Amino acid sequence: MTTPKVYLAGPEVFLAEAVAAGLAKKSLCTRYGFRGVFPLDAQLDLHGLSPAEQALRISRANEQLIRDCQFVVANLTPFRGPSADAGTAYEMGVASALGIPVFAYTNSGDDFAVRSVRASANTRMRSDGTREDERGMLIEDFGLADNLMLIGAIEFSGGTLVSRRVPPERQFHDLEAFEDCLRAASISFAAKR
Amino acid sequence: MTTPKVYLAGPEVFLAEAVAAGLAKKSLCTRYGFRGVFPLDAQLDLHGLSPAEQALRISRANEQLIRDCQFVVANLTPFRGPSADAGTAYEMGVASALGIPVFAYTNSGDDFAVRSVRASANTRMRSDGTREDERGMLIEDFGLADNLMLIGAIEFSGGTLVSRRVPPERQFHDLEAFEDCLRAASISFAAKR
Repeated sequence: MTTPKVYLAGPEVFLAEAVAAGLAKKSLCTRYGFRGVFPLDAQLDLHGLSPAEQALRISRANEQLIRDCQFVVANLTPFRGPSADAGTAYEMGVASALGIPVFAYTNSGDDFAVRSVRASANTRMRSDGTREDERGMLIEDFGLADNLMLIGAIEFSGGTLVSRRVPPERQFHDLEAFEDCLRAASISFAAKR
Repeated sequence: MTTPKVYLAGPEVFLAEAVAAGLAKKSLCTRYGFRGVFPLDAQLDLHGLSPAEQALRISRANEQLIRDCQFVVANLTPFRGPSADAGTAYEMGVASALGIPVFAYTNSGDDFAVRSVRASANTRMRSDGTREDERGMLIEDFGLADNLMLIGAIEFSGGTLVSRRVPPERQFHDLEAFEDCLRAASISFAAKR
């Protein structure tokens, strides 16, 4: 039986110690019987390419890595705004459309609505009882951890969402919720065997 | 010959006048020989459902609408942060994984890197010449309009990206760049016939 591969989506690729962050996750994957695949695993020769060409090469490689995996664990911890990193959100869409289960975690303990209000200069009530920000845009409030498309993908793909409140300075390093996702995935994969 | 359907992804669904914004886009679609499909088109009976159940119902319906379309035009105009709305990013992933061309536009005239710096409390130079924010996270800088996964999807799916600088107060309403996407799509579809 081959070891299931898991694509490790998340903003850790932006850390200065990105490679080490990937190795830490992969080590946990091994412990749960999986092989972790980190976006930086693609050994790309970017020499002589323009920045835009480099970006396209990386994007293509990441997408191929996702297609080769049996599931995804996405880090939804908010990145420069109330939502998950846009690249991570995109990759969840790729996986879910391909029928690849998306497990996800967030190290923010707050609902999306709470973070959206915090990211707004001010908010006001609409006549229907919902809130909007200073630009007239709705504060989405379904009591969820992020935009409903992301949360729906986890649910419908057969994944699990884990939310934990981690202090800001540890949010991109703490792996407890990540490990909970691996635990949930190992139960899910065991059930399928 | 059936009229190609285009899924209209973007944060307009959060406007108080969301339905009118959708109708304005659909009207332009008709002019270019397409049928516009707006996320709010799904007539959903959400009565008696909990907020979380409502969210899942909406998410599922939107995903079905995307699957029924021949292409997507995504509004990447930054939403509460330097990147596109997370739901829009997610939907681009769904479309691109299914082989559905993604056309996109942004009404921000600035590169992703410029906006990321602006969204950071402060930045500093790394020893490799790249920049990171106050949390040690990279300022992605490939001279692109958003995260490389989103831009890659447009390129590889056969779509087109249109960038225009629109004053902030008009960014969620101005449809010139949107219309440029429709024009590009109509040329692309005509070439396939």
